[in-house]
Amino acid sequence: MSKLTHLDADGRARMVDVGDKAVTSRRAEARGELVCAPATLELVRTGKTPKGSVLATAELAGVMAAKRTADLIPLCHTLALSKVAVEIAMDEALPGFAVRATVRSEGRTGVEMEALTAVSVACLTLFDMLKAVDKGMAIGAIRVTAKEGGQSGSWSSE
Amino acid sequence: MSKLTHLDADGRARMVDVGDKAVTSRRAEARGELVCAPATLELVRTGKTPKGSVLATAELAGVMAAKRTADLIPLCHTLALSKVAVEIAMDEALPGFAVRATVRSEGRTGVEMEALTAVSVACLTLFDMLKAVDKGMAIGAIRVTAKEGGQSGSWSSE
Amino acid sequence: MSKLTHLDADGRARMVDVGDKAVTSRRAEARGELVCAPATLELVRTGKTPKGSVLATAELAGVMAAKRTADLIPLCHTLALSKVAVEIAMDEALPGFAVRATVRSEGRTGVEMEALTAVSVACLTLFDMLKAVDKGMAIGAIRVTAKEGGQSGSWSSE
Amino acid sequence: MSKLTHLDADGRARMVDVGDKAVTSRRAEARGELVCAPATLELVRTGKTPKGSVLATAELAGVMAAKRTADLIPLCHTLALSKVAVEIAMDEALPGFAVRATVRSEGRTGVEMEALTAVSVACLTLFDMLKAVDKGMAIGAIRVTAKEGGQSGSWSSE
Amino acid sequence: MSKLTHLDADGRARMVDVGDKAVTSRRAEARGELVCAPATLELVRTGKTPKGSVLATAELAGVMAAKRTADLIPLCHTLALSKVAVEIAMDEALPGFAVRATVRSEGRTGVEMEALTAVSVACLTLFDMLKAVDKGMAIGAIRVTAKEGGQSGSWSSE
Amino acid sequence: MSKLTHLDADGRARMVDVGDKAVTSRRAEARGELVCAPATLELVRTGKTPKGSVLATAELAGVMAAKRTADLIPLCHTLALSKVAVEIAMDEALPGFAVRATVRSEGRTGVEMEALTAVSVACLTLFDMLKAVDKGMAIGAIRVTAKEGGQSGSWSSE
Repeated sequence: MSKLTHLDADGRARMVDVGDKAVTSRRAEARGELVCAPATLELVRTGKTPKGSVLATAELAGVMAAKRTADLIPLCHTLALSKVAVEIAMDEALPGFAVRATVRSEGRTGVEMEALTAVSVACLTLFDMLKAVDKGMAIGAIRVTAKEGGQSGSWSSE
Repeated sequence: MSKLTHLDADGRARMVDVGDKAVTSRRAEARGELVCAPATLELVRTGKTPKGSVLATAELAGVMAAKRTADLIPLCHTLALSKVAVEIAMDEALPGFAVRATVRSEGRTGVEMEALTAVSVACLTLFDMLKAVDKGMAIGAIRVTAKEGGQSGSWSSE
Repeated sequence: MSKLTHLDADGRARMVDVGDKAVTSRRAEARGELVCAPATLELVRTGKTPKGSVLATAELAGVMAAKRTADLIPLCHTLALSKVAVEIAMDEALPGFAVRATVRSEGRTGVEMEALTAVSVACLTLFDMLKAVDKGMAIGAIRVTAKEGGQSGSWSSE
Repeated sequence: MSKLTHLDADGRARMVDVGDKAVTSRRAEARGELVCAPATLELVRTGKTPKGSVLATAELAGVMAAKRTADLIPLCHTLALSKVAVEIAMDEALPGFAVRATVRSEGRTGVEMEALTAVSVACLTLFDMLKAVDKGMAIGAIRVTAKEGGQSGSWSSE
Repeated sequence: MSKLTHLDADGRARMVDVGDKAVTSRRAEARGELVCAPATLELVRTGKTPKGSVLATAELAGVMAAKRTADLIPLCHTLALSKVAVEIAMDEALPGFAVRATVRSEGRTGVEMEALTAVSVACLTLFDMLKAVDKGMAIGAIRVTAKEGGQSGSWSSE
Repeated sequence: MSKLTHLDADGRARMVDVGDKAVTSRRAEARGELVCAPATLELVRTGKTPKGSVLATAELAGVMAAKRTADLIPLCHTLALSKVAVEIAMDEALPGFAVRATVRSEGRTGVEMEALTAVSVACLTLFDMLKAVDKGMAIGAIRVTAKEGGQSGSWSSE
């Protein structure tokens, strides 16, 4: 059975030692969504307020959160990220907002957690900006959709 | 049509002015879940490693994140929280982990975002600790389940 | 001769004791500007890229920075801000960008430093986004333009 | 026309991808000033309180702020700085305080923003310590004065 | 037997609910020391470098750390501190440095942890500045020496 | 006489320039302890509450604090840590808790301060969790016990 890397032999939580891993080019993509009422989506799309502000604020919050991942996730390593991009699209089929984050780093550990954190905080920011008009929203489907670099090589959910 | 409170007349993102709101006792509860493979849940439940470490680490990360909500969500107000509690239960029906956060404050704004942030970061921390054994996990169903205090009064999703 | 409130009798830096001050409604406004080449301003105004992104990013950075003032300025008190607003206007007379921040709080100390920090970080963010096209920009004229509340009462530079 | 590197083809704010840039030795110097009343400067120079405390506190605040640049400026990369130095001199010609910051890093991006942030926060800290005696101070002339390393080579404003 | 307030009935770590406690004026004093070689103390006292810089840097670090206590100690409440003062004295009897921090707040919880954090980080900063000349230093005797306000009333170790 | 590396020729506090130092594998170990009443230790050991929670919370706080060392200690360099481990053992001889932290990094500076910060914050967290039952606890004996890598080579206190 696989071993939980973040627990030592005594079950003690620990930061995995990555000092002996090679520095390679890493990339990860994560996705998630905020599901809302159709009217909420419509409000952002057709309202008098420029729709850009809601999406742009959430995208920026996602980018900034990626840089603070190691402050939030106790056993994550601090990493110098070489790129963070967050894109939010309105999706009437959900209905809601589809969020995608891509993160790159030259380092010793993968950047999935940074991509997932960017998606999570972008979704939370959308929620914050829309909660006055829609109490029943839900954040979901947050998962890693692609990963490149490191020992385990490339992987994609599609 | 409802107004987006976080945008001013020009569509500019802003922190809502809460200076004239009354200080009242506020409470919010949020929930969410991490869905994983049955074997992953089993690993935490029956593995040689004490299951407590995984859950306790994620619960603590959630509590700490709640205190940093205003750092992460651009237009959230800084708040002095009087209580934060995060509980994670293993749920074989999911299969996965059910996360619940309760936050209290004596202040001028609600604490939904603090509860949602606690749930999100607890889920991210579970993901981080289990990702070595399960690439296909997903975080979802993050929503506000109860709210008390403030102008809009009490509200519960159930 | 006036006393420097942040130094004690031995010249030691200290946080002023505000425990005995009354909680009153405080407001401060600060302004500043980024002076750039006319072509840089023109690029933001007429470029193919939506001008909103540059201004909106800097405004948001200013709002978030206001909330972190006490983390940056060693002897500032931590405050719960009830409102932060940052507005950036393009000004061909400068030529450049005029930044204005307004901050409110119900507390024991003034919020000038929060307003000044918001203006400073908004200017720094504009600089960051434009530095690839204009090396000679300068940030200046950062000052408090109005203040209300507290022992010293209202004051305005105009 | 020059391209704004921090906006993608859709005008979306983004962190520039520096993953393919070479790691080189970077250095940047920035300057700025706090202009005050002559009596304020005199108070620091000849007061009973040791002048060192005001200058030393502001210098230290500048050094610490440089390390937090990526937390403050949304699209800045996190960097490991190899040196930060901030020097503040009293200047009767202004009258006021002349601030200079020098930052070094071995990395993929320049360190101008770190030097500018150090200068800005040092000026804000001076303002904070002196505001009780001088309401009309202004922070200005914050600009990059020298830069070395990276693709664009060395550059100096003098 | 006394109950551990930070654990719930299931032994789960939690932030104690202080929402129903009264807002009172709280004060705490903590002390600690850095013990070093006599020559290290002498270097600070009689060296060519002004002794003020070492002590002033550590005092300032202590003040700033007090404001970040809730970020560091997982179950501490965020508090608005009304005063933080840190004083370091050279003590030839130790030999070393005696550190004292005083913290005040108008709030629902005591401020011992803030005072202890200020002392700890001041000691760590002294250690950092002196470690190049003295490898064998030790930080110790960090304890609460006085406390006022709150349910448990005043208390002093002396 | 040895020079204080953190002060320049004018006695000004500065971050040492490490840009020309080699990147090597660094390791440091630090230790410390929380001394408490025998009954306090007994409460953790034999109480109804699982002892794991107290120790696990403090260990995690120590790991997280190590990652924030450069935010707390003014002249410390930001470092990417490759490993942080904190272990707390109950020790009836003290009586109290013995804390040990090990930190690794591939970088230009040593990691003693990160190990010492981890120990300090783990001790503070233990104090916080136990202070309701024991007012007279003291944190002490915090020192570096081993160091490897860098110009000065390996060193151990034992």
